[in-house]
Amino acid sequence: MPDLTRKAETLLALHHSAQPLILANAWDVASARIIEEAGFPALATTSAGIAFAFGYPDGQKISRKEMLAQVARIARSVKVPVTADVEAGYGNRPEDAAQTAREVIEAGAVGMNFEDATDDPANPLFDLPLQLARMRAIREVSAQAGVPLVLNARTDVYLAQVGPAETRYERTLQRLSAYRDVGADCLFAPGLRDAETIGRLVKDLGHPLNILAGPGSPSIPELAKLGVARVSLGSAPMRATLGLLQRMADELKTSGTYRTLEGAPAHGEVNKMMGA
Amino acid sequence: MPDLTRKAETLLALHHSAQPLILANAWDVASARIIEEAGFPALATTSAGIAFAFGYPDGQKISRKEMLAQVARIARSVKVPVTADVEAGYGNRPEDAAQTAREVIEAGAVGMNFEDATDDPANPLFDLPLQLARMRAIREVSAQAGVPLVLNARTDVYLAQVGPAETRYERTLQRLSAYRDVGADCLFAPGLRDAETIGRLVKDLGHPLNILAGPGSPSIPELAKLGVARVSLGSAPMRATLGLLQRMADELKTSGTYRTLEGAPAHGEVNKMMGA
Repeated sequence: MPDLTRKAETLLALHHSAQPLILANAWDVASARIIEEAGFPALATTSAGIAFAFGYPDGQKISRKEMLAQVARIARSVKVPVTADVEAGYGNRPEDAAQTAREVIEAGAVGMNFEDATDDPANPLFDLPLQLARMRAIREVSAQAGVPLVLNARTDVYLAQVGPAETRYERTLQRLSAYRDVGADCLFAPGLRDAETIGRLVKDLGHPLNILAGPGSPSIPELAKLGVARVSLGSAPMRATLGLLQRMADELKTSGTYRTLEGAPAHGEVNKMMGA
Repeated sequence: MPDLTRKAETLLALHHSAQPLILANAWDVASARIIEEAGFPALATTSAGIAFAFGYPDGQKISRKEMLAQVARIARSVKVPVTADVEAGYGNRPEDAAQTAREVIEAGAVGMNFEDATDDPANPLFDLPLQLARMRAIREVSAQAGVPLVLNARTDVYLAQVGPAETRYERTLQRLSAYRDVGADCLFAPGLRDAETIGRLVKDLGHPLNILAGPGSPSIPELAKLGVARVSLGSAPMRATLGLLQRMADELKTSGTYRTLEGAPAHGEVNKMMGA
């Protein structure tokens, strides 16, 4: 798969550039094409956004098959490298993670987000040795396929607010350091928004760090100054479009005008974007 | 199918109410759920929006199967009646129209848009006798199934700018009158935006008329005064979300801030909307 290999290398290189890699997450082909046309050099999917678009709540309620079918539609439709958010790999065992990695490559994606959150509130994170075994299984699949899948290893310590607040930094650092040492290409700490802590984590890890940004986060220039390698937006762009629809619904029901529908690309323009 | 029968009757009654039926067209489950939550009593799909979301240009480039699978996802996810835009029925023969109508009902929708545009520039509209035969085939399927499918019969005379401008009104009136007489429940003239002509067409048809609205159209209160029974928005809401994404992309690449992402429903709120 020389094309996928080259795309994976391109995606990895974007994590080692002078400026952070900005990933505006897509959830369907139209959102992906808009982001590609805007000139971003790579694309991420949002698992929550894809789940919502198909009518599922977030958190692996959608099947691996349905998630990867949408990743494949997106990857087929763009020329830039695509990295897929595949949650915790749709199964608890290393074999499940391996199967998910195989299907990510089959879908035409060259990177994957892989998280350590369980769906067990009593034990919200996978035990570290098991999570490391799962990540090693992904690395093996990647090596066998000859596609250097860009593995973005995520810990949910901050996002799921695991344990007492004062223990979270050390726990995040411990987990992400271990993920780095089994071959993760980038480390991801969603839920972390404090600039000083972000800067400290970048230094302590000495490895590319992904920050989930959105309203309330440091701006991208600020994140760049802190040494952040990758900035992604998760489901925020998809949810922003839902916010626009809510405002449109309100306008239709009150004034009955169409101001919220202004600023849209014309029908012919979108048609052209879809290859017409 | 007593549930579908009841829903079809509800949808039809909404065309004979004191206020126009407002249909804010959906293209995926999330957009459908937002519109339902906003309190609209029925939902339409946008065929262009669904095609774009899956990466096709508009105009029957998506297959009947893929279109109806998305209609089914939407219909399953909402309680209100759903009417499906199924373009020109995915095939030219009356049997094709009949098959599409059967699959609309199987998908759980209780209404359908059915247009008379061909994809032949030399002959842009189906010959009237053939189009009437196609509509009779749809009515037969509806009768056999016991679901009074709400048939919204569309002519593309204005939208496709067929023939000299001064002939379009008469041609539209001729076609829509014939569609009314073979059992269409509502008549649709997209591309018609002039208030005076709309009012005249309402009077001349003496039957529910659907107007495609958007920026530049008379407001909904104005359309109501003209006697319009149904106002739909086509792909405008979907394209408006693409416009928001374009503005977001621009903001991320210039100031690197997140103002375009404000006003979004929270992750937990959307999760809840999806049944979590």
